[in-house]
Amino acid sequence: MTPGAHSFAWEDPTATLAAGGRLSGLEIWRGIAAGELPRPPIGALMDFTLPEVQEGRIVFAADTAPWMLNPIGSVHGGAIATMLDSAVGCAVHTTLPAGVGYTTLELKLNFIRGVRVDDGQLLAEGKVIHRGGTTAIAEGRLTAASDGRLLAHATTTCLILTPR
Amino acid sequence: MTPGAHSFAWEDPTATLAAGGRLSGLEIWRGIAAGELPRPPIGALMDFTLPEVQEGRIVFAADTAPWMLNPIGSVHGGAIATMLDSAVGCAVHTTLPAGVGYTTLELKLNFIRGVRVDDGQLLAEGKVIHRGGTTAIAEGRLTAASDGRLLAHATTTCLILTPR
Amino acid sequence: MTPGAHSFAWEDPTATLAAGGRLSGLEIWRGIAAGELPRPPIGALMDFTLPEVQEGRIVFAADTAPWMLNPIGSVHGGAIATMLDSAVGCAVHTTLPAGVGYTTLELKLNFIRGVRVDDGQLLAEGKVIHRGGTTAIAEGRLTAASDGRLLAHATTTCLILTPR
Amino acid sequence: MTPGAHSFAWEDPTATLAAGGRLSGLEIWRGIAAGELPRPPIGALMDFTLPEVQEGRIVFAADTAPWMLNPIGSVHGGAIATMLDSAVGCAVHTTLPAGVGYTTLELKLNFIRGVRVDDGQLLAEGKVIHRGGTTAIAEGRLTAASDGRLLAHATTTCLILTPR
Repeated sequence: MTPGAHSFAWEDPTATLAAGGRLSGLEIWRGIAAGELPRPPIGALMDFTLPEVQEGRIVFAADTAPWMLNPIGSVHGGAIATMLDSAVGCAVHTTLPAGVGYTTLELKLNFIRGVRVDDGQLLAEGKVIHRGGTTAIAEGRLTAASDGRLLAHATTTCLILTPR
Repeated sequence: MTPGAHSFAWEDPTATLAAGGRLSGLEIWRGIAAGELPRPPIGALMDFTLPEVQEGRIVFAADTAPWMLNPIGSVHGGAIATMLDSAVGCAVHTTLPAGVGYTTLELKLNFIRGVRVDDGQLLAEGKVIHRGGTTAIAEGRLTAASDGRLLAHATTTCLILTPR
Repeated sequence: MTPGAHSFAWEDPTATLAAGGRLSGLEIWRGIAAGELPRPPIGALMDFTLPEVQEGRIVFAADTAPWMLNPIGSVHGGAIATMLDSAVGCAVHTTLPAGVGYTTLELKLNFIRGVRVDDGQLLAEGKVIHRGGTTAIAEGRLTAASDGRLLAHATTTCLILTPR
Repeated sequence: MTPGAHSFAWEDPTATLAAGGRLSGLEIWRGIAAGELPRPPIGALMDFTLPEVQEGRIVFAADTAPWMLNPIGSVHGGAIATMLDSAVGCAVHTTLPAGVGYTTLELKLNFIRGVRVDDGQLLAEGKVIHRGGTTAIAEGRLTAASDGRLLAHATTTCLILTPR
């Protein structure tokens, strides 16, 4: 354990927000994955990439970093929650047409194994379990890219926001 | 929405880790609150302060910041999860004697109201519901310091790690 | 452990259902508590009584019974879930005006202590944490009436169903 | 909606309890499925059968019944919770050797679609997500046997109880 510092910078996310009116959720996340639309600031903090974006399924990838650590040397639950909250919410988003939004009502996380800084790249896969007209349910799995070990699991309930 | 950047630096947290063998959880968190022990790196990211530390109850305070925002202008669930995960876990920690640790098995979050950047200071209060010999349960409430509005709620299950 | 049998009978609950159009949730649950409206069939199974019904808070009481037991002699999680699901959902219901319904989106239960058949009367208190226009959050506490020990804890998210 | 009554009887479950010392969880649940070991009383209430029992996966089947209904004509969350709590806990149990027990720390349920009495047979599938030395995580899916529609989803955290 040593002292350290971390800096990150983000682009103006207005273009991503504005795209919500004319692009579907799948198109928006494919645009962010391709670098055509700016990712949100927290994506810059985590330095997320998006190796897979399909309808109803999305994978966020990020490397562990010293700023994520607890004094005991494992990754803070908040960093894990940030990855899984993004994965499950955006999995729901990929099923929504242009102009339809969502909000996350609740998120439940199981921390299965301590995540170490030398676990390297983490993959957070979000997958829709159910997409109805009013609500959607999704699950998330956080694994170590190196060996596929399951590190954490999540479920979420989202409310679909359809303009009248 | 504009582009932006954020930088933060943390002290070597070894002293806080080493204190775990001779100080109780309550003493450790009072030490961090008083600036006598270094906070963990994620505490520097969030720029947490600790206005209240008691046995079984702790309050983390942090200001909203542009890096926490989603494209739609509300604070990302990951930042809220970071505050509440810290609050509920550390509330449990304040009940543990020196040499006894804990790990968070699961965390459930309800996002009640969208958190805006102009909500200013956020307070995450963690409170123990049950502390047994093997497990502990705690709840958390995230409120806006300005007007006390409830923004999010959490519950957690922790495993108590007693050396044999 | 011995063999056993259990029988229960319920009244036609149509009157309770029909009351939903002209009575508020608080009036309905006060009517059931007073024996003026029939309780639902599952209320007959559990032999619930309702010692307290207020706006935003309700208490269900039921005695442990041999049919609730696991082979290991403790009350099955399903019986505990039945009490707490009723308590948290109905606490939300007591805040709703006539003609407005709700549905439970999710329920999370912590089983804190094993419930024994000789724990006797159990109290399930449901209390609203947040009641908005679209969703509501409530918590529940299951205690032993004899000594107040906390046996289980619950949180729920409900969707408010307002006719257009 | 009509008045009604329900009666059920159970065998002495002592033989199932006693089997815990010499049979694995998989052997116990296969014994119950085959009718060689008595099911617990709550199994008689629900009239469970066990169409599938494997290591790490179990399916409980039960028919909807009038006693399960709410006044609004849908199956009470408590009956759904009873099926899913059984499925996820017993899925974990099927991975445990003789003499090793478990206890359910928490259960989270998502109610996805209202369950109607004419949905007929319900299937609650429990599946282990992670089985470690101290804790296990499982998920459950409640479906309608007739058409496979997903009605509810569950996750659980169990503590493994290994005698020293």
